Amino acid sequence: MITKPTLLIDEFKCKQNIANMFARSKQHHVTLRPHFKTHQSLEIGQWFKNVGVTKITVSSLDMASYFAKEWQDITVAFPVNILEIDVINTLVSKITLNILVEHKDSLEFLEKHLTHKINFYIKINIGNNRAGLRHYDLESIESILAFAKQSDKLNFIGFLGHAGQTYKCRGKAEILSVHYEAKTKLVTLKEQFKDTYPNVIASYGDTPSCSISEDFSGIDEIRPGNFALYDVMQAQIGSCELKQIAVAMVCPIVAIHPKQNELIIYGGGVHFSKDSINDKDHGTIYGLVVHKTSNGWGDIIPNTYVCALSQEHGIVKIPKTDINNYKIGDTILVLPIHSCMTANLMKAYYTLNGQVISMQS
Amino acid sequence: MITKPTLLIDEFKCKQNIANMFARSKQHHVTLRPHFKTHQSLEIGQWFKNVGVTKITVSSLDMASYFAKEWQDITVAFPVNILEIDVINTLVSKITLNILVEHKDSLEFLEKHLTHKINFYIKINIGNNRAGLRHYDLESIESILAFAKQSDKLNFIGFLGHAGQTYKCRGKAEILSVHYEAKTKLVTLKEQFKDTYPNVIASYGDTPSCSISEDFSGIDEIRPGNFALYDVMQAQIGSCELKQIAVAMVCPIVAIHPKQNELIIYGGGVHFSKDSINDKDHGTIYGLVVHKTSNGWGDIIPNTYVCALSQEHGIVKIPKTDINNYKIGDTILVLPIHSCMTANLMKAYYTLNGQVISMQS
Repeated sequence: MITKPTLLIDEFKCKQNIANMFARSKQHHVTLRPHFKTHQSLEIGQWFKNVGVTKITVSSLDMASYFAKEWQDITVAFPVNILEIDVINTLVSKITLNILVEHKDSLEFLEKHLTHKINFYIKINIGNNRAGLRHYDLESIESILAFAKQSDKLNFIGFLGHAGQTYKCRGKAEILSVHYEAKTKLVTLKEQFKDTYPNVIASYGDTPSCSISEDFSGIDEIRPGNFALYDVMQAQIGSCELKQIAVAMVCPIVAIHPKQNELIIYGGGVHFSKDSINDKDHGTIYGLVVHKTSNGWGDIIPNTYVCALSQEHGIVKIPKTDINNYKIGDTILVLPIHSCMTANLMKAYYTLNGQVISMQS
Repeated sequence: MITKPTLLIDEFKCKQNIANMFARSKQHHVTLRPHFKTHQSLEIGQWFKNVGVTKITVSSLDMASYFAKEWQDITVAFPVNILEIDVINTLVSKITLNILVEHKDSLEFLEKHLTHKINFYIKINIGNNRAGLRHYDLESIESILAFAKQSDKLNFIGFLGHAGQTYKCRGKAEILSVHYEAKTKLVTLKEQFKDTYPNVIASYGDTPSCSISEDFSGIDEIRPGNFALYDVMQAQIGSCELKQIAVAMVCPIVAIHPKQNELIIYGGGVHFSKDSINDKDHGTIYGLVVHKTSNGWGDIIPNTYVCALSQEHGIVKIPKTDINNYKIGDTILVLPIHSCMTANLMKAYYTLNGQVISMQS
C-alpha cells in the first residue's frame, strides 16, 4: 500500500514513447542515442535495448559508470571534467566512451593522462548559449583539431549541439523554426569539415525538436531524453500530449481548507523539485492533478493544480464544487512539471502493478 | 581530492550558529526545539546535543524514524499523514512523538488505530497561508479539543505556528513587524485556552524571526532550522550575514567563455536545487562565488554569481577583468541560495579537513 509520495510509471506509455522515437529515428535515417539522464535506470534502459537502441547519452561520468554495466557505447554530453581523469580511464578501458571538448586545454590534459584512446565531439553552441563554441568560431575549432591530429589517443568523431532553446518555444511552429535554425548551424559546420574528416558526424538533440520535426537532413544522430517520460513542461512546449506523460506522483492529502478551495498534500520540493511553468489561466503551477482510473490515470481534472511547494508540503487548488470529492487520507495523482528533476529526487519508480524499478542511487 | 560537486561544511561556523541560537533561547526563556530538516544528519545533531538541546523538530515520519535512533522527543511539523499509521505506531512505542493536527477526521482515525498515547499540537495558520487553522477559527479548534478530551490516547499539548511569511521580508524592520503580528496571533490564542489547558504551549518558529527578534513573550518553544547552515536567501532576508553561512559547494570549472564573461561549472539543479533569489543588480541568481582561503572560504567575489542552472551545468558570470583568474580544471566555491534543498540533494557534507558527514539517505 502506498502511504507517502511515490512516483508511478505507466510502463505501457513509456514503452510507447520509446517505440515512437525509435520509429522516427529509423524513418529519418538517424541513430537514436537517447539521453538517459531523465530516467537514470538500468531497467528502463532495457526497454530501449528491446527496440534496438545500442548507444546512449548520459550527463555525468558517475552516470556513465552506472550504465557501463550494460552499455558499451556511451556519450557523456557534458564538457569533460578533467578532474575525474581516474573515472575516465576506468571507463575508457572497458567501453567506447565519447566525451565533449570545447577547449584545447582539456585535450592537452587528456593527452598527458589518458591510458587509452578516447572519442571526442567538439561541443557547439547552436543557440542555447550554455556550453560550447560558437559555430563560426573556426579558429578555436581548428586549434582543437590540430592538437588532436598529433595524438593517437584523441579521436575526433563529430560536432555535437543541443538546441535547448526549444524549451522556450510554445507550439509546433515555433519549435520547428528554432529547430531549423539550430540544425542548420550544426550541419553547415559539419559540411565545412567533411573533406578533411569524411566520417565526422553531427549529433543533435533535444526532446521538442526530435519529437515533432520531419527534417533531420544532415544530422547523423539524435539525443533526446525526456521523451521517454515526458512531462507537463513538454506538453506546454508542444512536444507531446498530456496523455503521453508516463509518470505521475501519488500524494496523500493531509489537510483540506474548504474556504480557500485548497488541499494540502504530502508532496513538496524534495519530491517534485521546484521547477514550474507559467500557466495562462493559473499563473505559476507545479503540477497537474489527474483522474485516477482502475489501471493508472486518465485525463487532467480541470482547474486542479499544485499552486505552491515548500520542502515537503504542496498546496493544490481545486474548484469550489469539487471540495467534497476529497478527504484526508485519500491520495491524488499529480503529473510533474519536469520529469528529469522529479525522477532524480525520487530515486525509484513503481509500476502500475506495484513493482519497484530502481535507479542510479 | 575533490573532483566533482561536493558540499563543504565549515564546522566552526555551524557550531557557532548553533551556540548563538541556543544562547538566544536561554536569554528569552524559550525551549529551542530546532528543525532538523535542514541538515538531516545524526552527526550534526550531536553538535546540538553538545550545547544542551534535547528536543527536535522534523518534517516527515521518515525523518523522525531516522533521528529516533538518538533522540527521545521529536515533533513532526507537518499535518499528520494518517496513511503512515504503522510508522507512527512504531515511533510512539519508542519515543515521545508529537504530531500536528488540524482536523477532527485525523484524530478520529488515530483514536481508532493508535497503539499508544500520542501528543498533538493544533496547527495554526499565523499568516503563512499554507497549513493550519485560522487563529480565529475557534469552532474547529473546539471540535478538535472536544474529541480529544474523550480519548486517553490523544494528548493536546499546544498550538503550533510557522511564520514562514518572514521569507518574503527584506531587512530586520520588516521581519520584526511580521514576527510581531504572527506571534500575537499564536499567543492570544494560547491565552484563550490557558484556563482549560494550563499546560498548553505556544510553539513558534522560522529562522528569520528567531535569528533577530528580542521579543518572544508568550512563546514557549521555538523551532528554527535553517540557522544552523544559513544561506544566501537568509542573508538577503536579513536573518544573517553572508559570513555566517556554513556550507559552500565545490564546483569544477569545465569550460570558459571569455567573450561572454562566463564560466561553465559542473554543478547544476541536481546539486543546488533550482531555488533562486532576485538580486537587485543581477536579476535571478542561483549562488554566490566566494574566495577560497587556506582553511575554507572568505568573502564573496564581487559580481561573480551563478546566473543559470540546468540539470548538471551551472553558468557563472564573472567580471571581464577576472577572466584570467580561472582555468579549466580549477574548482570554485559557491554559497547556495537555499541550504535545506541543497543539503537534501547532496546527501553528505565534507568538513574542511576532509571528513565525510553522512545524512539520512
